[in-house]
Amino acid sequence: MSDENLQVRLASRPKGAPTEDDFELRREPKPTPGDGELLLRTRWLSLDPYMRGRMSDAPSYAAPVPVGGVMVGGTVAVVEESRHPDFEAGDHVLSMSGWQRYALSDGVGLRKLELPEARLSLALGALGMPGFTAWWGLNRIGEPKEGETLVVAAATGPVGSMVGQLAKRAGLRTVGVAGGPDKCRFATETLGFDVCLDHRDAGFAEALAKACPDGIDVYFENVGGKVLAGVLPLLNEHARVPLCGLVAHYNATSLPEGPDRTPMLLGLLLRRKIRLQGFIIADHFDEFGAFLKDVAPAVLSGEITVREDVTDGLESAPKAFIGMLSGQNFGKLVVQVS
Amino acid sequence: MSDENLQVRLASRPKGAPTEDDFELRREPKPTPGDGELLLRTRWLSLDPYMRGRMSDAPSYAAPVPVGGVMVGGTVAVVEESRHPDFEAGDHVLSMSGWQRYALSDGVGLRKLELPEARLSLALGALGMPGFTAWWGLNRIGEPKEGETLVVAAATGPVGSMVGQLAKRAGLRTVGVAGGPDKCRFATETLGFDVCLDHRDAGFAEALAKACPDGIDVYFENVGGKVLAGVLPLLNEHARVPLCGLVAHYNATSLPEGPDRTPMLLGLLLRRKIRLQGFIIADHFDEFGAFLKDVAPAVLSGEITVREDVTDGLESAPKAFIGMLSGQNFGKLVVQVS
Repeated sequence: MSDENLQVRLASRPKGAPTEDDFELRREPKPTPGDGELLLRTRWLSLDPYMRGRMSDAPSYAAPVPVGGVMVGGTVAVVEESRHPDFEAGDHVLSMSGWQRYALSDGVGLRKLELPEARLSLALGALGMPGFTAWWGLNRIGEPKEGETLVVAAATGPVGSMVGQLAKRAGLRTVGVAGGPDKCRFATETLGFDVCLDHRDAGFAEALAKACPDGIDVYFENVGGKVLAGVLPLLNEHARVPLCGLVAHYNATSLPEGPDRTPMLLGLLLRRKIRLQGFIIADHFDEFGAFLKDVAPAVLSGEITVREDVTDGLESAPKAFIGMLSGQNFGKLVVQVS
Repeated sequence: MSDENLQVRLASRPKGAPTEDDFELRREPKPTPGDGELLLRTRWLSLDPYMRGRMSDAPSYAAPVPVGGVMVGGTVAVVEESRHPDFEAGDHVLSMSGWQRYALSDGVGLRKLELPEARLSLALGALGMPGFTAWWGLNRIGEPKEGETLVVAAATGPVGSMVGQLAKRAGLRTVGVAGGPDKCRFATETLGFDVCLDHRDAGFAEALAKACPDGIDVYFENVGGKVLAGVLPLLNEHARVPLCGLVAHYNATSLPEGPDRTPMLLGLLLRRKIRLQGFIIADHFDEFGAFLKDVAPAVLSGEITVREDVTDGLESAPKAFIGMLSGQNFGKLVVQVS
């Protein structure tokens, strides 16, 4: 264990896709906890698409990371030293301590983890924010009904793979969308999707129509772009579209060329009586316990499959994050920090 | 009473705004009811924006009127002759008998009316489809809460005026939008809107922002276009947008110029966690009784104000309908047929 606090800071606000130059690696002294504080050592760092939003100062639901600030992020950390009555050294906690090896905490917002050592990183994926996003959006907005058809993109990612498996469990026909044949094969063979389509294929829209002979009742929207364009004409009357992300647009520096298709979208929502609803999972943590109760046993028993894409060391986090935004990860992207 | 059946038929599908040439006036013999049938004589014909959609053969939630067919429309009719056990001559009924003086019916889909003679036309407006649209969309999707701010356009029309008055009754701040100073004055002085803005004013967007100092929680969408553009930046987190019409776009022959603002709309829905939901009131007639129970006493007592714009004679229906699509009516547009 080094005594240095390795950190990844935001060096500059990206224009379009972030580059490694937008990040800065810094080595600071390991901090010392004061009275009522804890010293946390990061074991696992989560890399998630929402972080792209925090690198910008465009209006958002959350404050941007200041230029020069440590990148924001969820972590699984171990308490190295505690001067706080509720925690002791060796406790594992879920924290928002960011892209750094060490952090101080006053205990607020920490959640103690009871997971086995080998499964700690689940708290960042299937049993954390992405899994909860899938569960909440699917159930509370998607309202899935047996025999219906669901479509979700990034089908092998942490949200999409959970959406697909939960929907299958609820008796829906599940159609995944992913990038490349390996991911598509994994989606059908291992995750149990009925079909998985490669959005890079030229005939994607036609293939999607063929894969959804009864139309689409739930489209769990996390990407936007081309997948959304293919989905729209297939949405059934009274379809539900939970909207939790628009990864395809996060690096955009301008709007797509015209015409302005907004009236077309609204007209479709009207004629087919569709519910489209954005949500941010942070608003719904009052239901996190219900989520864990429903999903944790199936994840820990292996009934629900979890795939992680593990990157080693904080130094490689920027590159892994940049790759994720163009779909290069295969499974939930986590950084093993120490 | 003439023995002729005056009818207005669809002569051609309009390109853009309909003209009087798209309609044809026909005189047919008065029909004779067979066994189990009724002869209906139209007293009042309703003119509503949705009829523009039925004149087109673009995909819709309902079949188009065939070229040469009688224009579709809701009517209040009196039974002139009955060979049906459930109805007798003199009964007043709500029917979908269209733009014509006489029609035959087998009784299916008719609803007997108990309204006083002088208030029969209410069944086409405040106590009919438009009022029910306002009530259902506001309550089931809008979920209004005391102290919130609601915006609705066409504020003196049959839907908008009901939305505004119901929302006021529920304790919301109500901001109407209408075309011209007379309508705006009526909206505030008679309908009880807190503010009403003229969408024709150059500074409309700024005035709207000023009229909604706490943002907008419910936007009851029936027009689209410029009003929607002004509303979007003001929508609060967790706002609800019931979508029942897009009158500003009904005559459009092409999409607006680019860029394509769809990703901007979706991004906003996501960041502010907004629910946008289309609905067609015909899906919800199981709740019509609950609507009447809630609203009819207040309408009949005058607690809820109803304004009608009455046109005399079927011959003038095409012109009145065309005018309505550009906002020339002032109140619920009805045709007094006989």
